[in-house]
Amino acid sequence: MTPVREDDVVALIRRLTGPAAGRLALGIGDDAAVWQPSRSHRSLITTDALIEGVHFPRELPLADAAFRAMAANVSDLAAMGARPVLATIALGLREGTTLEDIEHLYGGFVACANDARMAIAGGDLTRAPALTIAITAIGEAASSRVKTRAGARPGDVVAATGELGDSRAGLDLLREPGSLSGTPAARAAAAFARPQARWREGLFLGASSNVHAMMDCSDGLSTDLARLGETSGLGAYVETVPVGAAARAMAAHLGQDAEAYALAGGEDFELLAAIAPRAYAHLAARFRARFGRSLERVGVMREGSGVTWRRNGKEETIERTGWDHFA
Amino acid sequence: MTPVREDDVVALIRRLTGPAAGRLALGIGDDAAVWQPSRSHRSLITTDALIEGVHFPRELPLADAAFRAMAANVSDLAAMGARPVLATIALGLREGTTLEDIEHLYGGFVACANDARMAIAGGDLTRAPALTIAITAIGEAASSRVKTRAGARPGDVVAATGELGDSRAGLDLLREPGSLSGTPAARAAAAFARPQARWREGLFLGASSNVHAMMDCSDGLSTDLARLGETSGLGAYVETVPVGAAARAMAAHLGQDAEAYALAGGEDFELLAAIAPRAYAHLAARFRARFGRSLERVGVMREGSGVTWRRNGKEETIERTGWDHFA
Repeated sequence: MTPVREDDVVALIRRLTGPAAGRLALGIGDDAAVWQPSRSHRSLITTDALIEGVHFPRELPLADAAFRAMAANVSDLAAMGARPVLATIALGLREGTTLEDIEHLYGGFVACANDARMAIAGGDLTRAPALTIAITAIGEAASSRVKTRAGARPGDVVAATGELGDSRAGLDLLREPGSLSGTPAARAAAAFARPQARWREGLFLGASSNVHAMMDCSDGLSTDLARLGETSGLGAYVETVPVGAAARAMAAHLGQDAEAYALAGGEDFELLAAIAPRAYAHLAARFRARFGRSLERVGVMREGSGVTWRRNGKEETIERTGWDHFA
Repeated sequence: MTPVREDDVVALIRRLTGPAAGRLALGIGDDAAVWQPSRSHRSLITTDALIEGVHFPRELPLADAAFRAMAANVSDLAAMGARPVLATIALGLREGTTLEDIEHLYGGFVACANDARMAIAGGDLTRAPALTIAITAIGEAASSRVKTRAGARPGDVVAATGELGDSRAGLDLLREPGSLSGTPAARAAAAFARPQARWREGLFLGASSNVHAMMDCSDGLSTDLARLGETSGLGAYVETVPVGAAARAMAAHLGQDAEAYALAGGEDFELLAAIAPRAYAHLAARFRARFGRSLERVGVMREGSGVTWRRNGKEETIERTGWDHFA
């Protein structure tokens, strides 16, 4: 029995399903697929499943689990520069699920969908051995504004739409209640339970021709930046890891390096963008004026492959420390 | 703890998500949702999850489980009169799943998608406690050709695109190998493992303004006809149950009434259409010329509510004997 690595599976599936053709402009492998309903418009489609015990602990309130699942899908659309328009939800429910449970779940779905100005268009319900939330979200974009992982160029500045690691801190806090307190505890809990998908930021960055490639940071910066590099045929180096305050506090509690902790975190749902270096400062200033937050400079794309970390005058290779869905 | 009935859950979800608005022309409750990308066109979206142990037994070959899951989604598009265009697949995989298993699964997905001339656009992979297949399929239709469950009129002929019950016979055969042999066994196995979604028939019926309402027969004729009636604000009576040959053989083996057996069967994926009575004969003749099969007359829509069965000169109320996903 061969152990299965996620990237091997994706490669196999791409081979079995064949290349994108006809009106399917982009198939498997990016944050979302791209469909061409007309010459100038694109529909973006993404699907994401979250399973209790795998993606979130059973202790997480159902409304939060639902919110997170929806946010993951909105984030995939955001990463392509698309405006979210609708979602469908396939729910697998454990035995003993009550109408009240379903009301909590839909409370979370609706809250996140409303945030994203998105309609919940349909769904499916079935029994399942563990709570299973599979969402498909559809977005729209003008064809000129769709961003993929493939367009990054050597020298591009890699920037993140926010700080990283707080969601990981939230998960660690759920696992060890009391390990944080005060503001860091509240931030960690909120980052994990109610992650904010950056669709407004995605639209903003998608509208700029100086943004060459984009993806969301869902499996940890180290893993995701490696994927962005691979798809663009490039390597990257990390200069600075923008560590969230909750991540910093949790890393201190655990006696770990804060930057390494944030680098390996997952599901922050910040966007990563590869930006033409001469345009970065101006775009970052406009971003700050618009969103009241920094467009955090993380590193630089370079020729070659792999991700290295320039820290304290040394260059370290970064192993993929993030989330592998089969690890 | 309140026991949960599927229809109660759907009603709750419709209340929580609110009515369809804006470019969402039709939301939760029909076979697919309807989105309006432009004035004259409609996108149809449906999602369906199949879980090992709930929707299919673990003994079913993976390629067949995958084919069935995809066919269920294609059938929902067919039921709206839409042309299938693309699908996404969220897979939850048990521990120990191999690349070979995934190759078998995708063999089934691709076979069904190719039959339906549909692209597989993307997906998601995760670990899960049981094999979980959640598919979302998108179709397209001219706005004038979209059929819902809501348009049936009193006196409309209810017709099915094929015989019923063979899929149920296939499931019973899997549970009790050897209970059928020869041609009935082969038919039962094929009906369960490789159900044919009637998208060509759906396009044909969708093109006729004499077809007032349509749905697919996925939870058993008795349950599905009751739903069509409810949505159209009508009742119906059943005159004839078109029993498949495998269903007839399995009912005989089990000592059951063949018509009752077929009436309660599920996942045949034949379409049910409510057709203007004066147009039925001509449409059925054209259907036979086109597809080489009968457009089976099942019954008639009537004022009132509920489904009754006119049999042997008597009228019996039909309980919903079909599939409830929480029963």
